[in-house]
Amino acid sequence: MRGVLMHAPGDFRVEEREDPKILRPTDAVIRLSATCVCGSDLWPYRGVEPIDGPSPIGHEYVGIVEEVGSEVTTIRPGQFVVGGFSASDNTCEICRAGYQTSCVQREWMNAMGAQAERLRVPLADGTLVATPGMPDADLIPSLLAASDVLGTGWFAATAAEAGLGKTVAVVGDGAVGLLAVLAAKQLGAERIIAMSRHEPRQKLAREFGATDIVTERGDEGVARIKELTGGLGAHSVVEAVGTQESMLQAIRSTRPGGHVGYVGVAHGVKLDGEELFFSRVHLHGGPAPVRQYLPQLIDLIWNRQIDPGKVFDLVLPLEQAAEAYRAMDDRRAVKALLTP
Amino acid sequence: MRGVLMHAPGDFRVEEREDPKILRPTDAVIRLSATCVCGSDLWPYRGVEPIDGPSPIGHEYVGIVEEVGSEVTTIRPGQFVVGGFSASDNTCEICRAGYQTSCVQREWMNAMGAQAERLRVPLADGTLVATPGMPDADLIPSLLAASDVLGTGWFAATAAEAGLGKTVAVVGDGAVGLLAVLAAKQLGAERIIAMSRHEPRQKLAREFGATDIVTERGDEGVARIKELTGGLGAHSVVEAVGTQESMLQAIRSTRPGGHVGYVGVAHGVKLDGEELFFSRVHLHGGPAPVRQYLPQLIDLIWNRQIDPGKVFDLVLPLEQAAEAYRAMDDRRAVKALLTP
Repeated sequence: MRGVLMHAPGDFRVEEREDPKILRPTDAVIRLSATCVCGSDLWPYRGVEPIDGPSPIGHEYVGIVEEVGSEVTTIRPGQFVVGGFSASDNTCEICRAGYQTSCVQREWMNAMGAQAERLRVPLADGTLVATPGMPDADLIPSLLAASDVLGTGWFAATAAEAGLGKTVAVVGDGAVGLLAVLAAKQLGAERIIAMSRHEPRQKLAREFGATDIVTERGDEGVARIKELTGGLGAHSVVEAVGTQESMLQAIRSTRPGGHVGYVGVAHGVKLDGEELFFSRVHLHGGPAPVRQYLPQLIDLIWNRQIDPGKVFDLVLPLEQAAEAYRAMDDRRAVKALLTP
Repeated sequence: MRGVLMHAPGDFRVEEREDPKILRPTDAVIRLSATCVCGSDLWPYRGVEPIDGPSPIGHEYVGIVEEVGSEVTTIRPGQFVVGGFSASDNTCEICRAGYQTSCVQREWMNAMGAQAERLRVPLADGTLVATPGMPDADLIPSLLAASDVLGTGWFAATAAEAGLGKTVAVVGDGAVGLLAVLAAKQLGAERIIAMSRHEPRQKLAREFGATDIVTERGDEGVARIKELTGGLGAHSVVEAVGTQESMLQAIRSTRPGGHVGYVGVAHGVKLDGEELFFSRVHLHGGPAPVRQYLPQLIDLIWNRQIDPGKVFDLVLPLEQAAEAYRAMDDRRAVKALLTP
């Protein structure tokens, strides 16, 4: 089959890869209807994360089940399925507490390489959620978003305790930040401040529910959030970038006793214990347990109550994955969907 | 009046200080029945925090109101009162959310110097809570504990979400750590693991409700907690020391999705963003909003349901404050009560 292989920073190619097979009786193999490039895929693309190439990449996927192992009981060939970016049994104590990305049997889907025509999914019963039927074509981008960026934005907004009566600020205007705006809106937030200096992204943020746009960054951004919140800071702040500056911006924009939900994969971030202590914020984040939210998110999408697929502003055939990476790296695209 | 003045690290003396007066119409002046030395007072004593001496110190106090300003309406002369270690109006938005140590009008009581015969308390209506009547002498140590160490241990256990069915680990066997054990017990925790290698402190931890004692520290301590929790880590971990080692020990002892409540005043602590991200813990802490808990804690003490005063294992006249500091610095005493 065809699939993306990372060779070196900036050198990601679509090449022949071995067809995935059932390796364990709990596996499924699915034929992908769509996959995409994640903001976190840009870390190795930019050389910030090491590459042991040539190696597969990609962890966002929707598709049709082709084959299941002998111990798979709930997922069946022919179903349309969505799965999270990590495989999980969904039965261990950690999964049952809602932290499927820390499942005792967890496997990262990146290693399987979802930017391809087919994909092996371990722990299929725990990892995959079937949609109520075959989706209309226009629902596929939104269902694909549920696989990571929507689920991650949702987790971030939840970790930040966005909810009724709350003022929520979102640091980062990538797909995850934009979908955290959508999540905050769905969770009932009163006021949603998107921090963005890019007009098309500001527009999408407003469509998703942002009530205010702040273009300032760093200390000036913090000052502006304080100004908008009676000097106190926001109740809830989402961090969806993963740099030292964005993390401090998020913490400093939060009022004492408020909540920071951080989902940007932290690179080179060092937090000073004393500053954190005196900030009095709640800090929670990490790799989002997307699986926890999939049934709810699929339901909202299926009933056309949300349209997270709008974050895909570039659609390319899988064969042009290299261009998808370039467009996202240059910030010409928010998020690129690939059709195998 | 007599009171402690910090001159230099290791050189804390009881000397004549000016009698406190009503400076603002919201002030009260109280005559102290008891005060004490806090673990955090040892930071300047040890030279870790700078001293601009001679300057007063002490922030834990109970006593009888002598005088109130013209705008004080609920606190009256003759009442026995307990107050938190920071003054707060208890009416601003931050106070109402339960974060009185971040009150928009906050003042630290350390600057007033509670290790003395008398004390000026700003924002008396917001800061002080009167007991139902004059306490019996044997209740005074427990009421004094409520002023900081009990309230701080309670906040730490609450921040760590200690509760029904939870396994709680406590890093630090000082007064705050021991009282976090007591708090976890009151909050309904199923299993409480005290980390201590000092026999008298282990004994007190057991009296307060600890079900297990772990003597190992650092990585070995983490491994032992994992071993006791089916390899997962504790649901709730209290950090009550404030060093790099203790903070990492707390984070690493917590299961994914679990909660760390940290109240040790962080000194020289640097947290790596990536480790924190992949730990998936909730992190919350800071200077405890003791005022939030005072009515509840006074009630538990008044009805003799808890006996937090047991943490005082040394009682000295105020004049011997220097010896109290030495005993705590040498870890000969858990906590020293001073009688003015």
